[in-house]
Amino acid sequence: MSVTATARHTDLDPATVRRAVEARLTDFLRAKADEAADHRLPPLIHRTLGDFLTAGGKRVRPLLCVIGWHCGGHDTPPPDAVLQVAAALEMFHAFALIHDDVMDRSAIRRGRPTVHRTIATALRRQGRDPATADHMGNAAAILVGDLALTWSDELMHTAGLTPARLGDILPLVHAMRSEAVYGQYLDLTATGRPTTDVGQALRIADYKTARYTIERPLHIGAALAGADHRLQAVLTAYARPLGEAFQLRDDLLGALGTPAATGKPHTDDLRDGKHTALAALALTRADPEQRHILQTLLGDPGLTEDGAARIRALLVATGARDEAEALILTRHRQALHALDTAALPPEVTTALTSMADAAVRRSA
Amino acid sequence: MSVTATARHTDLDPATVRRAVEARLTDFLRAKADEAADHRLPPLIHRTLGDFLTAGGKRVRPLLCVIGWHCGGHDTPPPDAVLQVAAALEMFHAFALIHDDVMDRSAIRRGRPTVHRTIATALRRQGRDPATADHMGNAAAILVGDLALTWSDELMHTAGLTPARLGDILPLVHAMRSEAVYGQYLDLTATGRPTTDVGQALRIADYKTARYTIERPLHIGAALAGADHRLQAVLTAYARPLGEAFQLRDDLLGALGTPAATGKPHTDDLRDGKHTALAALALTRADPEQRHILQTLLGDPGLTEDGAARIRALLVATGARDEAEALILTRHRQALHALDTAALPPEVTTALTSMADAAVRRSA
Repeated sequence: MSVTATARHTDLDPATVRRAVEARLTDFLRAKADEAADHRLPPLIHRTLGDFLTAGGKRVRPLLCVIGWHCGGHDTPPPDAVLQVAAALEMFHAFALIHDDVMDRSAIRRGRPTVHRTIATALRRQGRDPATADHMGNAAAILVGDLALTWSDELMHTAGLTPARLGDILPLVHAMRSEAVYGQYLDLTATGRPTTDVGQALRIADYKTARYTIERPLHIGAALAGADHRLQAVLTAYARPLGEAFQLRDDLLGALGTPAATGKPHTDDLRDGKHTALAALALTRADPEQRHILQTLLGDPGLTEDGAARIRALLVATGARDEAEALILTRHRQALHALDTAALPPEVTTALTSMADAAVRRSA
Repeated sequence: MSVTATARHTDLDPATVRRAVEARLTDFLRAKADEAADHRLPPLIHRTLGDFLTAGGKRVRPLLCVIGWHCGGHDTPPPDAVLQVAAALEMFHAFALIHDDVMDRSAIRRGRPTVHRTIATALRRQGRDPATADHMGNAAAILVGDLALTWSDELMHTAGLTPARLGDILPLVHAMRSEAVYGQYLDLTATGRPTTDVGQALRIADYKTARYTIERPLHIGAALAGADHRLQAVLTAYARPLGEAFQLRDDLLGALGTPAATGKPHTDDLRDGKHTALAALALTRADPEQRHILQTLLGDPGLTEDGAARIRALLVATGARDEAEALILTRHRQALHALDTAALPPEVTTALTSMADAAVRRSA
């Protein structure tokens, strides 16, 4: 989400939070680089991870974590411990994306070659044969991801939280991590065979996006401020529909967006046959002939740009695109309604409203 | 290490420790299965992990953790919290092996198909084309490994340790995890191009085996008993040479052992061109003609059983096997010497001596 609206308090200004989180990540990686140098360990792992983390990213999860913390009514800037937990969430996300790109065989992320591709290219230049270089690129990317997960832990545990506070957030962190992996797994096993099952597509969105991306970061931040169950329930009521809206927007951008704006190719999801709600809606609404074309082209490893253009035309012609837009609007309203009925600090309501608006209106 | 010698106290009997750790893993996975069923999540992930964990394994790390705890002079059975931390180390090891097998493209582990192969076979049976099934098998195995890492954390954090104790072991756990990943990375990047550099091969062994497998589990166990730096240094002096001996034995078994005993193929390491100390010794000691043959065959993706037999003959003819055996003996002695000069509880000395003997004499 490219949140550009300015919150009323400087301490909830997204740009400030992003800068603070990025500074923490940079400091942490610098310390890891020094450690590696002391032990004569190769620099490729932490350099690759550093490049990945600084190449962009909207820092949605750290931002939501900090907003969650403000739910406790704090009108001071978030303390270092909160910012470091927020940074740990971004490090965890780096793990998830790096492994995701290996699993999806993606070539491009954030407008640059993905981690496994970058390493494979370097190995080819060093004279490894292409098949070996590609395999080693994947293997090294798995390890870079593993280390990001390990380091996300380390950031969390060394944030300087009181043992009681750490004890409050760990169950939420465990839940978030399991949900992220299960979301990926549901996504993986549904890929290649999109069906008319819109419910299953939204279930994947629930795990991958609503819970992992929105609900848990908010919960973790709120727990850092000592939030009770009632407040956590409000945040859930906001996060779940917004997560679906966010994922529906992602589906639309992934299939119909422009690569120049999103930083990733717009044919991969179609060629992989991702079981998105958008694809399920198109298959549901298609006439027999349209359905036959969609079933032939979606998930075809040899899909051409021409074939992709035919799919895109059908996503529009079947009305799937319009229905997805309508679903986004409904969910956006539900999320805002959850905020209306809660007694959140006004700057939190403003920030969450901005996030919700940005999530559904974004072009990247 | 197949430790069969019986320690003097029942509480240090390896079979008892193994059973207790396995019971904890089974209970944990059963709870995860119930949770998954409640949320209608697919059972494949926890079932696969459960099958993997119960298919065997020597439980070296949990055992060393419990022995480390006994360093504190306890002559009672280890409390639940210690056993659960020990179980967390085994869960972490499951993560490491599952990812390792994807990275090494191994087909067999513990006498059974590896996780990625098992899943790929199931997908082929469900009608997926072979290339897709293989790719999805790898992807799902990455996710199963990711979840094992996440669950290892959860086991650790829910062990019921006091916050102070948890604080004592977390830095050791972080170090162990980073060392395991760096060890894998050093191994990966050296694979395919074995050289005469015995030092680099031993450095890989230091990270992968000495630190990750032996030193850190002992340190973590000892820290659970409140060990001081002096005791930790003794354990390091034992672990480092023993780790090298253990890895050298692994190299010998991997190249010259019998698959029926080890549960894994004995040509993979040669075909992959693993940069083992054994390979480095053979290359160092070979005459020009022998070296040419070794350099041609080691790491040849098309290596036949015939070619492997030629390598094996050269590992013996160059004297590399004998030198590796001699290095094992020296390191075994160094490890035992570290115990001699320390004032450890007698049952700990007995157990660590048994472990050291088993590590160098094992056939599997």
